[in-house]
Amino acid sequence: MPHKRIFVNVAGYGGMADITEQVREIVRESGIENGVVVIFSKGSTGAITTIEYEPGLIKDLPRVLDELIPYSAYYAHHETWHDDNGAGHLKASIVGPSITVPFENGELLLGTWQQIVVINFDTREREREVIVSVLPV
Amino acid sequence: MPHKRIFVNVAGYGGMADITEQVREIVRESGIENGVVVIFSKGSTGAITTIEYEPGLIKDLPRVLDELIPYSAYYAHHETWHDDNGAGHLKASIVGPSITVPFENGELLLGTWQQIVVINFDTREREREVIVSVLPV
Amino acid sequence: MPHKRIFVNVAGYGGMADITEQVREIVRESGIENGVVVIFSKGSTGAITTIEYEPGLIKDLPRVLDELIPYSAYYAHHETWHDDNGAGHLKASIVGPSITVPFENGELLLGTWQQIVVINFDTREREREVIVSVLPV
Repeated sequence: MPHKRIFVNVAGYGGMADITEQVREIVRESGIENGVVVIFSKGSTGAITTIEYEPGLIKDLPRVLDELIPYSAYYAHHETWHDDNGAGHLKASIVGPSITVPFENGELLLGTWQQIVVINFDTREREREVIVSVLPV
Repeated sequence: MPHKRIFVNVAGYGGMADITEQVREIVRESGIENGVVVIFSKGSTGAITTIEYEPGLIKDLPRVLDELIPYSAYYAHHETWHDDNGAGHLKASIVGPSITVPFENGELLLGTWQQIVVINFDTREREREVIVSVLPV
Repeated sequence: MPHKRIFVNVAGYGGMADITEQVREIVRESGIENGVVVIFSKGSTGAITTIEYEPGLIKDLPRVLDELIPYSAYYAHHETWHDDNGAGHLKASIVGPSITVPFENGELLLGTWQQIVVINFDTREREREVIVSVLPV
């Protein structure tokens, strides 16, 4: 099946969007019963992971990452482009651009409190493009 | 080949279990000569990575992560559920739920001192469920 | 298609090499039009991620990671082997050994400023071995 795209507006500074339903729908539409689905964030300030998507952790993740890698600190990256998103690039590279999730009988094998999210680590709201690829096993 | 499951009891607060042998056995049983194997941790407080599985690093990884993201700190997550594993969720999301490892002639292409581990970042011992999916190349 | 290997000398302490062109070439040579490519770093002190590969971030990433997980600190790992790369192992495990990137019509679906890199977290320059596996969708 060709790759599918999810486009979603996400707030900056570590905002995240739950894309589990969209991924689930893409898997169902594929008609493939058993396989894995690759979720990839296009662009160097986005990242993909899983998290319990609830109001507390949505606040905790950006706050804790900013304590470790503050947006307000100096980064050599800012000298290259005279922008301000050096911390966002680093966070995105550490969390990583892709995950792969198995599915069985058409259902994602996630935990009950485990959602797939795209995180926007840029310093402004952006439309993030996520590419979803379904492979049979 | 259908997905396979590994169930393993793992200590809390960053305990880890070496699951390399189980993954190796699943690859051999698949009868597939060349391919990749996806290893996925079900649940939002578990993570998968590779590490040199030796007594020193087994202590270092949870200690260092706890210095960066302490279990004893405040997390908004605790207000949602009145539990205490906010730090564990964050660590799991940063390390990530999945990796993909190539194999050739039925053998995993790992380094000699590189083992596949599931990490349990919850605040209690848990049986972690790991899903293993073998794909030919 | 069989797995392909990239061998590249990379400086220690978080040095990185842009391997995007080599991955692109491997995808083209495969003759597969649409699929995903798995990039895996063999060895427990190497990692794979994407980053904007420019002179600023090349300096920022190792510096920031060393502020969080200093090479000069004590690690129990050093007692096992009497070496000095405990921090490097931890950084590699957190960033992770593999990513999966989709491609379409033979072209990697990366952002314009998103490159695939292998990072060498060991304490000396090393030839890193990266395994590249192409799968059709």
